[in-house]
Amino acid sequence: MSDLADESSSDIRRQALACREAAQAVAALSTEAKNDLLRAMGDALDADAEAILVANAEDLRAAEAKGTAGAMLDRLKLDRQRLAGIANALREVADLPDPVGMVTRRETRPNGIEIARVRVPLGVVAMIYEARPNVTADAAALCLKAGNGVILRGGSEAVRSNVAIAGALKRALRDHGIPEAALTLVDDLRRETMVELLRLNDIVDLAIPRGGEGLIRFVAEHARVPVIKHYKGVCHLYADADADLDLALDLLLDGKVSRPGVCNALETLLVHADVADAFLPRAAAMLSARDVQLRADARAMARMPGAVPASDEDWDAEFLDLILAVRVVDTLDDAIAHIRRHGSDHTEVIATRDEAAAARFVHALRSAVVMVNASSRFSDGGELGLGAEIGISTTRLHAYGPMGAESLTIERFVVRGSGQTRNLRN
Amino acid sequence: MSDLADESSSDIRRQALACREAAQAVAALSTEAKNDLLRAMGDALDADAEAILVANAEDLRAAEAKGTAGAMLDRLKLDRQRLAGIANALREVADLPDPVGMVTRRETRPNGIEIARVRVPLGVVAMIYEARPNVTADAAALCLKAGNGVILRGGSEAVRSNVAIAGALKRALRDHGIPEAALTLVDDLRRETMVELLRLNDIVDLAIPRGGEGLIRFVAEHARVPVIKHYKGVCHLYADADADLDLALDLLLDGKVSRPGVCNALETLLVHADVADAFLPRAAAMLSARDVQLRADARAMARMPGAVPASDEDWDAEFLDLILAVRVVDTLDDAIAHIRRHGSDHTEVIATRDEAAAARFVHALRSAVVMVNASSRFSDGGELGLGAEIGISTTRLHAYGPMGAESLTIERFVVRGSGQTRNLRN
Repeated sequence: MSDLADESSSDIRRQALACREAAQAVAALSTEAKNDLLRAMGDALDADAEAILVANAEDLRAAEAKGTAGAMLDRLKLDRQRLAGIANALREVADLPDPVGMVTRRETRPNGIEIARVRVPLGVVAMIYEARPNVTADAAALCLKAGNGVILRGGSEAVRSNVAIAGALKRALRDHGIPEAALTLVDDLRRETMVELLRLNDIVDLAIPRGGEGLIRFVAEHARVPVIKHYKGVCHLYADADADLDLALDLLLDGKVSRPGVCNALETLLVHADVADAFLPRAAAMLSARDVQLRADARAMARMPGAVPASDEDWDAEFLDLILAVRVVDTLDDAIAHIRRHGSDHTEVIATRDEAAAARFVHALRSAVVMVNASSRFSDGGELGLGAEIGISTTRLHAYGPMGAESLTIERFVVRGSGQTRNLRN
Repeated sequence: MSDLADESSSDIRRQALACREAAQAVAALSTEAKNDLLRAMGDALDADAEAILVANAEDLRAAEAKGTAGAMLDRLKLDRQRLAGIANALREVADLPDPVGMVTRRETRPNGIEIARVRVPLGVVAMIYEARPNVTADAAALCLKAGNGVILRGGSEAVRSNVAIAGALKRALRDHGIPEAALTLVDDLRRETMVELLRLNDIVDLAIPRGGEGLIRFVAEHARVPVIKHYKGVCHLYADADADLDLALDLLLDGKVSRPGVCNALETLLVHADVADAFLPRAAAMLSARDVQLRADARAMARMPGAVPASDEDWDAEFLDLILAVRVVDTLDDAIAHIRRHGSDHTEVIATRDEAAAARFVHALRSAVVMVNASSRFSDGGELGLGAEIGISTTRLHAYGPMGAESLTIERFVVRGSGQTRNLRN
């Protein structure tokens, strides 16, 4: 197959090929050069703040005119403070360790060849996202940090904001002598063009969709390039027979109330029958005071004033709202069976003082993040020490759980010998 | 989506669901239990040797009756020695380290939560392969070692052999109290059933096709489950201006002649112009004596008696035969540019005494395996220290290069705290 786009190539194919070519220049950059670039990108955002906010105001006006809902408008909206936060996030990515070139293992074989496992960039990463214009800068920063080219396909609601942000970032690329195509903002926002992009498996190494379940399913359905994704986070807290109940209440409140609209919020509480009497009335009082609606099985309902009966669907639901499903279980194994059946492989928490129960919970569940006596809200790239997050994977391939810059690289083999051969002399 | 197969479920879906259920039992096994099982599987193959060879003889007769080619017959054929080798390979997998439960990193965050990265099984792995019946045992062993269930879809040519081998292996599973569905041999070999299997992305975690490029492209085209694959190995040897020419000749002979039909054999030789006069006539004499056909550019042809002109296609070809493409390049960068343009991301070798040239070659090329002064034939799971190999990936995702048992697992996060919350108290 020829690497060169001929005249019959589509625009998106030509753009992707240019990004791949430019990605080689990014891959060759030193750590210092990449970090300088990222800081310059932060400065460029600051310098263009006025123009970006004007563009964003136009996006907001257009969205309002179309009758867009409040939550979406909030995701779309930028102000001076948010924009400064985005610029600072770029500088923070500059401060992260560089995954490229990292030697993860070394071994010398009996025949004397030395084998190192070394991280290299993936190549070209396509981000597919919706209304949040901050993704344009955040994703670009992490992809470039990891030595990749990035193709950004944002939502039409944010098009003016994205163009303004990408314009600032590209200026920084130009000033550092890096081909602008290393950061390619797709300007043709038709669905069929996105599908074409998702089928360029000879050019694009990975697609990461971020947004609602509809977008993610669309990407997964149409892609021929590898996709890393998570559909939803149905996160569980299990209060064990031997739980510290005060601690369990803290985890419950933090997990359900502190930010109910995010994927690491709790959706279901499972309580061991032995502590149901002591725990559930306190939980009900605490949560009702915070306007949380309780949907419970019969045994939980009997102990939770104000609760309503849970439907079958409630056990599989990601409410993303002040709603909690509650069930009483007779054993740890019943809790595990419930989570296996209804979980989404995202994040599960056990509250217990019993080390054996904790070990069994961790061993039996294969979710991306399993926690003992800590809040589900820590299931986040920053909180787990990755520095920044490009997405979360609930697919057990390549990355599982929150993904940082390292997830945008891959280990390969570098072998050094002194003339060893396999079948000539031994 | 319900986990339970209803009556309208297809056979293949029901089989896959049973495999996923059984995979949980495999995931829960201790290292010792898994190793006992693998040794018992080896013993079962030995015990059933007679029946397996009878079945294999029938497969061979049927293949011959259909006029199957010699190379395919050789891949299909088992004899006592080959079968003993397969049984021993199972015991060797037992002796490998267990990747499951391996803690790859630990960190304590400022708030006191302890984060460990721990390897867990993928779940269900589907192997799609052609005529080699040894894959039935080899792939099953590696998948089980890594705590997975395995669905085996072999070629119709080997169906009797595969049934006999799988029967022996399943007896070992039964004897160890593990549900037989952990090893599921697909008995319906229609293409549409394979396509259905490849679309079960709610059940199957990974598909690994092994065989000719046609099969692999078919799998990649139809799969909705993640696929790890390599299409071909167009491996390069570059003899640098500062190469030790005797060493380079050894690498050339081993790489091209020792087993030309495998993917880590050399296909193209690139020679720096400064050493073309000294190197190419010797290379031509050595290779011609081994019946290697030389397809060369003009400058190489002038120095290689018997060479014929290379066509444009030859630079992209995986000959899998005693054929070598040869080109003279003026600089290291020209060699890198050639490999970037024509390579398959599999394995590239530089012969040089110049450390800077070696470093530049390694840095500039992102192939899965890059070697300095060592034969391309070491690009193999066993030779690179993985113990055994389930496949090779030239896709920069999840695994890149030869894949062993570890590539059938994924790192997840295990977090231990003492009641830390994110937004309640700090």
